[in-house]
Amino acid sequence: MNQRPASQPLLQTDQPAGAAASAVRWLPAWLRSYRRADLGSDLLAGLIVSLMLVPQAMAYALLAGLPPQVGLYASILPPMLYGIFGSSRALAVGPVALVSLLVASGLQDLAPAGSGEYLLLALTLALLTGLVQIVMGAARLGRLVSFISHPVISGFTSAAALIIAFSQASHLLGVRLPSQERLPELLSALFVHFSQTNLATLALSLGSLAALIFFRSRLEGLLTRLGAPANLALFVSKSGPLLVVLGSALLVWLLRLDQSAGVPVVGAIPSGLPRLALPSFDLHTWRELAAPALTISLVGYLESISVARALASRRRQKINPNQELVALGIANLGAAFTGGYPVTGGLSRSMVNFSAGAKSGLASIISASLVALAALFLTPLFAFLPRAALAAIIIVAVASLLDFSALPRTWRYNKADAISLAATFLVVLGWGAESGILAGVAISLALYLWRTSRPHIAIVGRVGDSEHFRNILRHKVRTWPNILAVRIDESLYFANSQYLESALLNAIAEYPKVEHLLLICSAINFIDASALETLESLAHELASAGVALHLTEVKGPVMDRLERSGFIARLGCERVHLSTHIAVSKLAHPSQ
Amino acid sequence: MNQRPASQPLLQTDQPAGAAASAVRWLPAWLRSYRRADLGSDLLAGLIVSLMLVPQAMAYALLAGLPPQVGLYASILPPMLYGIFGSSRALAVGPVALVSLLVASGLQDLAPAGSGEYLLLALTLALLTGLVQIVMGAARLGRLVSFISHPVISGFTSAAALIIAFSQASHLLGVRLPSQERLPELLSALFVHFSQTNLATLALSLGSLAALIFFRSRLEGLLTRLGAPANLALFVSKSGPLLVVLGSALLVWLLRLDQSAGVPVVGAIPSGLPRLALPSFDLHTWRELAAPALTISLVGYLESISVARALASRRRQKINPNQELVALGIANLGAAFTGGYPVTGGLSRSMVNFSAGAKSGLASIISASLVALAALFLTPLFAFLPRAALAAIIIVAVASLLDFSALPRTWRYNKADAISLAATFLVVLGWGAESGILAGVAISLALYLWRTSRPHIAIVGRVGDSEHFRNILRHKVRTWPNILAVRIDESLYFANSQYLESALLNAIAEYPKVEHLLLICSAINFIDASALETLESLAHELASAGVALHLTEVKGPVMDRLERSGFIARLGCERVHLSTHIAVSKLAHPSQ
Repeated sequence: MNQRPASQPLLQTDQPAGAAASAVRWLPAWLRSYRRADLGSDLLAGLIVSLMLVPQAMAYALLAGLPPQVGLYASILPPMLYGIFGSSRALAVGPVALVSLLVASGLQDLAPAGSGEYLLLALTLALLTGLVQIVMGAARLGRLVSFISHPVISGFTSAAALIIAFSQASHLLGVRLPSQERLPELLSALFVHFSQTNLATLALSLGSLAALIFFRSRLEGLLTRLGAPANLALFVSKSGPLLVVLGSALLVWLLRLDQSAGVPVVGAIPSGLPRLALPSFDLHTWRELAAPALTISLVGYLESISVARALASRRRQKINPNQELVALGIANLGAAFTGGYPVTGGLSRSMVNFSAGAKSGLASIISASLVALAALFLTPLFAFLPRAALAAIIIVAVASLLDFSALPRTWRYNKADAISLAATFLVVLGWGAESGILAGVAISLALYLWRTSRPHIAIVGRVGDSEHFRNILRHKVRTWPNILAVRIDESLYFANSQYLESALLNAIAEYPKVEHLLLICSAINFIDASALETLESLAHELASAGVALHLTEVKGPVMDRLERSGFIARLGCERVHLSTHIAVSKLAHPSQ
Repeated sequence: MNQRPASQPLLQTDQPAGAAASAVRWLPAWLRSYRRADLGSDLLAGLIVSLMLVPQAMAYALLAGLPPQVGLYASILPPMLYGIFGSSRALAVGPVALVSLLVASGLQDLAPAGSGEYLLLALTLALLTGLVQIVMGAARLGRLVSFISHPVISGFTSAAALIIAFSQASHLLGVRLPSQERLPELLSALFVHFSQTNLATLALSLGSLAALIFFRSRLEGLLTRLGAPANLALFVSKSGPLLVVLGSALLVWLLRLDQSAGVPVVGAIPSGLPRLALPSFDLHTWRELAAPALTISLVGYLESISVARALASRRRQKINPNQELVALGIANLGAAFTGGYPVTGGLSRSMVNFSAGAKSGLASIISASLVALAALFLTPLFAFLPRAALAAIIIVAVASLLDFSALPRTWRYNKADAISLAATFLVVLGWGAESGILAGVAISLALYLWRTSRPHIAIVGRVGDSEHFRNILRHKVRTWPNILAVRIDESLYFANSQYLESALLNAIAEYPKVEHLLLICSAINFIDASALETLESLAHELASAGVALHLTEVKGPVMDRLERSGFIARLGCERVHLSTHIAVSKLAHPSQ
């Protein structure tokens, strides 16, 4: 073994590398070892992803309260930048549903949706999100998101999917509603305006939904059964949204449905590549956007890193969390200066990218280039695109995020997790996405702290003739009348030290013959200053009751601290034992 | 052993008793077993405490921005009620310095100090504090205060003592300053007005301080050395504050210092017992006072329970935390309806009460009766009492709360605790008492969470031929090339599960010959839903790398959950071992 200092954690996951290694590390990893054989896979994956990206980008921009071209602009430079700087080889970066919802809810009180001011705020939000992510990555704070637990993410995702789906319902009906972030208002507005449903729009919506669901859930299997090659089947099935977009736009144009039947359409979209745009550098604006920028950077990073990790582990590749943060931050800066809005790595497109065989960031660069071509040449077609078709695309995309089985499954395993999940879900629905995440994190941390403040305590005895000691209530074990061996299943810190003191004093009162109390420290990973004071007073109180306090199986780092504080010297070295077995051998009466 | 269900904690400290036992429990415990022999001790203790209580009560009332008689009123009914309902036999309840500071800082922005409205707010604050404490006690939430760690309490106490001492400095100089809650403002105001010092007042102040310090630190030892009985020595030394009050008032009256030299005096105090007073029941006022009431209930309870616990353990008596909360709450309700202000059990008077031999709550009832006599007959004397004498009493009393050695001592033991202490201290000084406590609690919890999110991980081997496994870096141990035994020193939960997954995968990468990864779960007290998902994915990833995941020494409660979730079935029962020793015996290659 090499000579690591014993007080440091043995395994470090995010140590800074040497300066030379670091310089190479920020180059695209895939470029250093690119094989020509991978080019075909990357081309195909880039093509398939762009088929999904064009309609999704426009739909998510509308969800965020922005004109559709903003979604296209956010899908050109940002994925290229991520392709260069990111550590995941299959992550597809661009507009996503959850972040678009957060943009809408963060900006809705600051400017009217779609106004020039609103566009400027969206750019600025992308700038701030990028800066937060870059700073967090540079400060190696990627680990902060681990404080958002799985149940909180699950509750947030399901609730956000519900809100997104219901916010699109009005477009399906062809009804114009003010944008709402919270479910109660959404539902009541829908109820009030339900009678204004535009029947031509509803027909288009139902047709689009049917086509999308067929493409999504049936077509690939059908084609494969008919003998089509896997890649072709994937290609055709993923082109569903684009075909719906083109087909419905064609239908509206042919039948002039926008004028004859009043079907709401997207309208004229400027064609061409995005120009250089400037976000706001006004400090007052920055302060107003600080909270949503923080939420979007964390939620965006969280979605992105989860997908990236899941995909990387399937091919035994590594993800560097802090590099991911920096790469996403750079992508967001790219969005901020080319007329886009906040982006991140999305679940569905990344999965498709991976399945289609994407081998490197080149796939992202290719799909972004194809979006640029669409922005140059396809936009005249989109003028007749019915909003209903985009709403249908969003609803089908977010439907897969709803997971109603998560709550009962989590409840069966651990009630505290289920409470966090349900609370996050309800707060997101009733008070909005940001409040929901905050409440979920606060509740899950509070429940964790509450649990550690009342730890499990077991009185243990020896299993047969082994050296192994287990709970007397669960195992057939041997005990000695003058020894009480107690295992505390938690680190000792301020929130539980008083509870433990009372519990141990009560235990001594229950066993009046006991002369030695063995505190088995195998599960004690840490003793803080408050708990140390409690231990001192416990030792005194036990002594005055004629009971000697012993410590066994104290871990190295804990022992170091106890020795430094002088506690071991005051207790007496002979009261500290390497193992419970050794202590019992010494302390049990010979006659027993 | 009796048949407790194995999933419950073995030791319960605050189980509700049966209904019958409960009815008896709320009677004074000391009345059930009072011995006539204790009466003498209780009388003497009551007398000595009242000597301290009369001047302190007036001084602390002034500190709280209230007229001095309010302090006396708060020292009559409340200690009697505590004497009846409390579980501590020596706790002396009444006005205390820290709570008085919190009252002043909670009310200073709501009404001018000393006004009728201010008095009404103080009554209402006592009412709310009482209600909060009774509700917390009834809901058995006394344990909530354990989330305020010792370092936070230490930082708060020292900072509050500094603020109190400097807030009294203007009275020592005879200068009138607006009341300030924060040290920077206090110091600058003192600096600006320093030139207005009243020399006669300063002389009185220095005389009072000298007398008090002599009485406090020298006299008792001196008298004992001269052969005086211990009780007499205690009696004489504790009468210091009252003698200073009477002597300085006499001096002012004789020399007419209030008129000739402009020495600020307390002025006319109405004599007689408190009348029934009514706090405000206005909801708007309640909302304004909610935050200070919550702080005062927690801080007051914390001071009280710490003193009560310390004294009870010296005589091996028990304190019931939730009964204490209810008793303090009742005492505060008593203060609210008899013209007082929030009270709690104070450190110094309780220590004196204990040393003087108080055997029961009767001592409190006696001292309260003597305060009532003082309110009836001594108040004309107090009209000439210089404020400087009361300021000197406060300063000497709070000086003992300053503990500058706590910071370096805590720093040596544990840096995180020292950071909490220093942060609390600084925030209290700079932003006020309430903000300081809130910041301290938040910081100490955050530091605890941060620590658990990056746990200590040890690769272990067998110590000699024992069945005991320890860290390979700290002990001379035996290892096997095809087995990697890793002990994780923390429960697995959302904040650390991703870190652990990466750490274990990195460990496997470092030892390419390993076929079996033993996860030693002796220190894992809990696995939450997020960590369970991580374990599932870890098992899959290890399997695809040709490594089998094994669990050893899994605790009962953890095993129950893992089985319920189906994880054990998916992993395979043969992968779970009672002890690391058994696992190694099975898995090590026979030839080794």
